[in-house]
Amino acid sequence: MKILDCTLRDGGYYTQWDFENELVQNYIDAFNHLPVDYLEIGYRSNAMTEYFGEYFYCPTYVLEKIRQQSQRKLAIILNEKDVRAVDARSLLSPCLGYIDMIRIAVDPANFKRALSLAEEVRSMGFELSFNVMYMSKWSGNKCFLDFLPEANGLLDYFYLVDSYGGVYPEDVRQTIDMVKEKLECKIGFHGHNNLELALINTLTAIDSGADIVDATITGMGRGAGNLKTELLLTALNSRDNLQVNFNALSNVVSDFEKLQEQHGWGTNLPYMVSGANSLPQKNVMEWVTQRFYSFNSIIRALQNQKSGVQDNEHLPVFEAPKKYRQVLIVGGGPNAIKHSQAVQEYVKSQEDICIIHASSKNAKAYRDLSVDQFFCLVGSEGHRLEKVFEDFGDFKGACILPPFPRKMGTYIPDAVKKGTYELAKIDFTNKLTDTHTALALQTSIELGAEKIVITGYDGYQESTLTQLERSLSEENEYLFSAFIEAYKIDVKFITPTNYKGLPVSSVYSFLT
Amino acid sequence: MKILDCTLRDGGYYTQWDFENELVQNYIDAFNHLPVDYLEIGYRSNAMTEYFGEYFYCPTYVLEKIRQQSQRKLAIILNEKDVRAVDARSLLSPCLGYIDMIRIAVDPANFKRALSLAEEVRSMGFELSFNVMYMSKWSGNKCFLDFLPEANGLLDYFYLVDSYGGVYPEDVRQTIDMVKEKLECKIGFHGHNNLELALINTLTAIDSGADIVDATITGMGRGAGNLKTELLLTALNSRDNLQVNFNALSNVVSDFEKLQEQHGWGTNLPYMVSGANSLPQKNVMEWVTQRFYSFNSIIRALQNQKSGVQDNEHLPVFEAPKKYRQVLIVGGGPNAIKHSQAVQEYVKSQEDICIIHASSKNAKAYRDLSVDQFFCLVGSEGHRLEKVFEDFGDFKGACILPPFPRKMGTYIPDAVKKGTYELAKIDFTNKLTDTHTALALQTSIELGAEKIVITGYDGYQESTLTQLERSLSEENEYLFSAFIEAYKIDVKFITPTNYKGLPVSSVYSFLT
Repeated sequence: MKILDCTLRDGGYYTQWDFENELVQNYIDAFNHLPVDYLEIGYRSNAMTEYFGEYFYCPTYVLEKIRQQSQRKLAIILNEKDVRAVDARSLLSPCLGYIDMIRIAVDPANFKRALSLAEEVRSMGFELSFNVMYMSKWSGNKCFLDFLPEANGLLDYFYLVDSYGGVYPEDVRQTIDMVKEKLECKIGFHGHNNLELALINTLTAIDSGADIVDATITGMGRGAGNLKTELLLTALNSRDNLQVNFNALSNVVSDFEKLQEQHGWGTNLPYMVSGANSLPQKNVMEWVTQRFYSFNSIIRALQNQKSGVQDNEHLPVFEAPKKYRQVLIVGGGPNAIKHSQAVQEYVKSQEDICIIHASSKNAKAYRDLSVDQFFCLVGSEGHRLEKVFEDFGDFKGACILPPFPRKMGTYIPDAVKKGTYELAKIDFTNKLTDTHTALALQTSIELGAEKIVITGYDGYQESTLTQLERSLSEENEYLFSAFIEAYKIDVKFITPTNYKGLPVSSVYSFLT
Repeated sequence: MKILDCTLRDGGYYTQWDFENELVQNYIDAFNHLPVDYLEIGYRSNAMTEYFGEYFYCPTYVLEKIRQQSQRKLAIILNEKDVRAVDARSLLSPCLGYIDMIRIAVDPANFKRALSLAEEVRSMGFELSFNVMYMSKWSGNKCFLDFLPEANGLLDYFYLVDSYGGVYPEDVRQTIDMVKEKLECKIGFHGHNNLELALINTLTAIDSGADIVDATITGMGRGAGNLKTELLLTALNSRDNLQVNFNALSNVVSDFEKLQEQHGWGTNLPYMVSGANSLPQKNVMEWVTQRFYSFNSIIRALQNQKSGVQDNEHLPVFEAPKKYRQVLIVGGGPNAIKHSQAVQEYVKSQEDICIIHASSKNAKAYRDLSVDQFFCLVGSEGHRLEKVFEDFGDFKGACILPPFPRKMGTYIPDAVKKGTYELAKIDFTNKLTDTHTALALQTSIELGAEKIVITGYDGYQESTLTQLERSLSEENEYLFSAFIEAYKIDVKFITPTNYKGLPVSSVYSFLT
């Protein structure tokens, strides 16, 4: 039985496949002292249209460097959905002499197409493995199962991938038996840990005759993550007396635990629910890591997905009570508070102006203004509204939600249900339509705005930008640009902002 | 099949059984909407000689308040090792009318003694459960197994407790079968999560006929923690269609996740190793949560425990190369750097003085002084020494370790092995002998000190004291007091310190 560690490849989902050189070197060194047979160091890929880093492309100098340091067999993986047989030579020739095994991640729906890529890879002399996804849904896919025997003679390993992290040991046993009836190659198992079943599923796979299993240090990997290499080795050490150098192991674990503090992989309630119900964790990962949606929102969205509805209530469609020439959009950044006196003076000096709170975070500072106020409720924003306004005593605003159907469950506090509406559409973009910014901008249009002034969109310091902040910044910059492009409206950021390429003026220049 | 949530009881190990009122109220409220049958809210106990909080004693007002809020059955637990049959009436009478079930935590070695406590509890009219520990070791304990039938007719539930978190599903199945042959009452299962097997073990217990199982929110509980309530409910929801209010569930999970950020329960490599080898996790919990020992040290200590040795090498016993009238002890606090110029001036002005580095953290600031220097190496301090001195080029110090046998594996950098010694004894205390402070103080004695001056023992701000800092402060205050009491030596803290009741002077008052 062999073990493959794919920390760099699967962990890259959290770092866009960039890792510090020192971390990689320590990782490779540690595994020179550990009973693991293969290291999968990343992808090889055609150029993509978004940024992915070093270990997504594994250029030759990376292959060389790691080959030199490592005493283990090395693997890389191809995404079958993005790679055709004709691409194989150009992508893989640089791997010859450095890489021992090519794995191909295969959607069962594309199994037949994958066979021709496999033939090409095989002819280049690599060991070859298929990592076939969505094993919890195979038994309903007669067509795929019928094709299986065509892979005979072509593959070294055929992997069962528990993509959703939702299979149980008994499923593993049955699926291996089913595959073994149709296929003569060795069997692999790649588990995910949504339900904390990765270890027992992997041990069950081994006991059912699997020849190779995957794991990653600290479980680093997409969504809830993988079987933890340290857990597998510890279990095999005590159970089967596998010799493990625990000092080497704990060194590499410590390194990745530091990364984990930053990125926070591992299972949690939303991942458990998506796993248990075989729902894709791509959205969940985005919601959990990027958007700060509450668990409640995520759970409701998952329940909606499970029952096939995207949202569980139609709301009255928003119609502007009157038109406003000008709109002030208030974001959640500190400058909306720091400069609130000036901004309020500005509002008082204008006629025909209203306020849209993109986030409720700073709303309290503006509650005493007598102009009409609108509140954007995306995802869990209703909970924030509740906290900010406590008993809603003199709350007079209207609440606006994204158009139906909404992916993300939406919480509406009881006290404001009467004055809550959904937009009919968001028409200046078809991306990021469930964000505060898209909602606030579209609402401005519905309100008839000819001019928009903005506060509390502070952006972030370039020098200390985290991954999350960078992605939020890029999203907002995109939305503002798309909006200005589409509507040619006079937009001004009137308090300090780090956003780039957008029109700025100072609120103080408007005051007398 | 019933579910018992024991978050407050088992989670209390991390908070000394104190929880914020609001947290408890939200917890109770959430479970009024969740399919869980019992809430175990804490211990009842005779007075202990260390501090344990509200939910360790569960005074009447607590019982009343929770009974009023909760629509669930309530349980408390007794520690059999600290409670005799004669204590039962006084401990439990206040529970009458509030608490439905009394559970008793039983060491199999005391099973027979526990039966008389059980009879007393039973006679008071409570439902009664035995939570019998160490199930991974029962099969070797003929005596205990022979006594089992004596509990017939006495208990409502007999729990298997996987104290070490090291059993596998097959063990659960076999142990339940074994117990069922000897005992007629209902069976319970309480799993720990060291190997992430708590869910599968619990589901296996249910499938093997267990009538009640335990879980805690976010797995909060001693050491690696328990089966997560949210995981159990999610699995039973998808597997058996148990109706779960995921909004209530995610609310309570969010609350405890905030606590978890502070206390950090959950499994990790040391807990995995202790679980897989049925080693007690009491030490591991102390090492992981309090002492900041490296994983390497902990793993080595666990390997030592497993193979029955406490340390793997005898070192030469330290004998002072000469006697010094005065010793400067340098701790790891920032004031040893902030005031280092003054402290160095002081050292230069003295005759017959040497330096003991209790921690190597600040050692570099003092390396140019020409006096003799000694380095205390406890646990993983050798790694720190290595980082501080890099290649050890002109390192001339001697390293001192605690006496043999040492609980905690000790790492000695190769470059300093020649000049490394262990103390013969630590004689002014028998507590905390493996701490930096104990080692530094005892070394002062071995060096003949008549006067000790101290820097870098800054202590912590009372107002922002964390649990960990409080405990380290208390330890150090205790050690200094015990030392001064035992040796009547002139001790002075010469840079600012928050330690209380210890002799302080200013280094500046000694300079001319």
